[in-house]
Amino acid sequence: MRNIKLTIEYDGTAFQGWQVQPGNRRTVQGVIEKALHKIFKQKIRLIGSGRTDSGVHARGQVANFKISSDMPCDEIVRALNANIPEDVAILEAREVADDFHAQYSVKSKTYRYTILNRPARSALDRYTSLHYFHKLNVSVMKEEAKALIGKKDFKSFTASDPSKKQDNTTRTVKSIVIKKSKDGVTVDITADGFLYKMVRNIIGTLLAVGSGQLLKGSVKLILKKKDRSFAHDTAKAHGLCLMKVEY
Amino acid sequence: MRNIKLTIEYDGTAFQGWQVQPGNRRTVQGVIEKALHKIFKQKIRLIGSGRTDSGVHARGQVANFKISSDMPCDEIVRALNANIPEDVAILEAREVADDFHAQYSVKSKTYRYTILNRPARSALDRYTSLHYFHKLNVSVMKEEAKALIGKKDFKSFTASDPSKKQDNTTRTVKSIVIKKSKDGVTVDITADGFLYKMVRNIIGTLLAVGSGQLLKGSVKLILKKKDRSFAHDTAKAHGLCLMKVEY
Repeated sequence: MRNIKLTIEYDGTAFQGWQVQPGNRRTVQGVIEKALHKIFKQKIRLIGSGRTDSGVHARGQVANFKISSDMPCDEIVRALNANIPEDVAILEAREVADDFHAQYSVKSKTYRYTILNRPARSALDRYTSLHYFHKLNVSVMKEEAKALIGKKDFKSFTASDPSKKQDNTTRTVKSIVIKKSKDGVTVDITADGFLYKMVRNIIGTLLAVGSGQLLKGSVKLILKKKDRSFAHDTAKAHGLCLMKVEY
Repeated sequence: MRNIKLTIEYDGTAFQGWQVQPGNRRTVQGVIEKALHKIFKQKIRLIGSGRTDSGVHARGQVANFKISSDMPCDEIVRALNANIPEDVAILEAREVADDFHAQYSVKSKTYRYTILNRPARSALDRYTSLHYFHKLNVSVMKEEAKALIGKKDFKSFTASDPSKKQDNTTRTVKSIVIKKSKDGVTVDITADGFLYKMVRNIIGTLLAVGSGQLLKGSVKLILKKKDRSFAHDTAKAHGLCLMKVEY
């Protein structure tokens, strides 16, 4: 059996997230598995690096599947792209070692959150950036974000995930890069793993500090509390994009 | 009467272009005029800087209208944004001199054409960039584009516009800036005015030279011919965006 690693881009707007769910919901995993079934005439299980929520996008989601076919990787890319809807694109297929597992082999992931920070909403970026009209102080956001770097207990920044028990809430955030763009701000967060809604809860809190709704020093205090009720509201899904998964 | 200048962003995907047309087609001018009618309880004629074709986007379209109401400009922006669909956004409203005319007062316009130059198509940028998979030589494109700078007869690069006679085909191209991005190329063209489909015909020809389908020096020769049949195919509408109109 060959083990094939896919790199996947998707526009999450019209999907109920990555993962196949009970009922007939439209998911990214679902449409790719359907195409694999059609191409290889057999049921193939696709393993993603992890779930993304409804409305979240990806430019570098990774998944793998096993297949006995000797179809070249370039042809797998073409065949898949011809059989999946236009809001998903397979960027690359590559044969990897037999023990590669898209979820368990992850070393780090990078998410980008895009904020449009101006009075007027956007037409062109309405599905890919959060419109936030309170003026943001980017240097305060950068300063606050420093408290999140390193191996920490992120319990204050996770939602209880109804689908699984989450005993260990410690993760290592490797970097947070906050950049001012012409009309907004982007936040890139890299960690060895993310808890359920962790990025969106961090962003919600950074927005509150950046706009002056929370005092400077709040991020550090909230982290110490280890209690979700102290962090700010979860930022909306559509500003979030999974950029890269490293192995 | 006050003269109000609007700056407008739109996602052209679901519009039949800017200009109101016979029949019940969905146009940007149409949806804004409808909102103006609703807000000011009277028919108001909106004058755009020029038409954009079906599928073409804008981040800086400009239009003006006259009104006797004393509603503050900020409030006009809010009222319009609340009454137009989400694929159009009013970025700014400003009171201008009585003789300002969005079309006749134009000094220059800048269009951007966005090309995705990689084997795989894009999911997230599928409506805002042209997927071109032949490898482009950006330095050849830059070199060829030089022939287009200055006051020239662009007859070879215009389509005959069925709606109006086009006697004078001379325009002054002020700059063409071609930039390589991670996965593609952007071309920014600034001119004192553009002929019908001029940008898209220039882009089609630059793509043919950049991919080696046309020889180096072709752009200069085509320009000299003053005959549309020598230029290459018109590049698709959805890669094009009106970025700025200057007065």
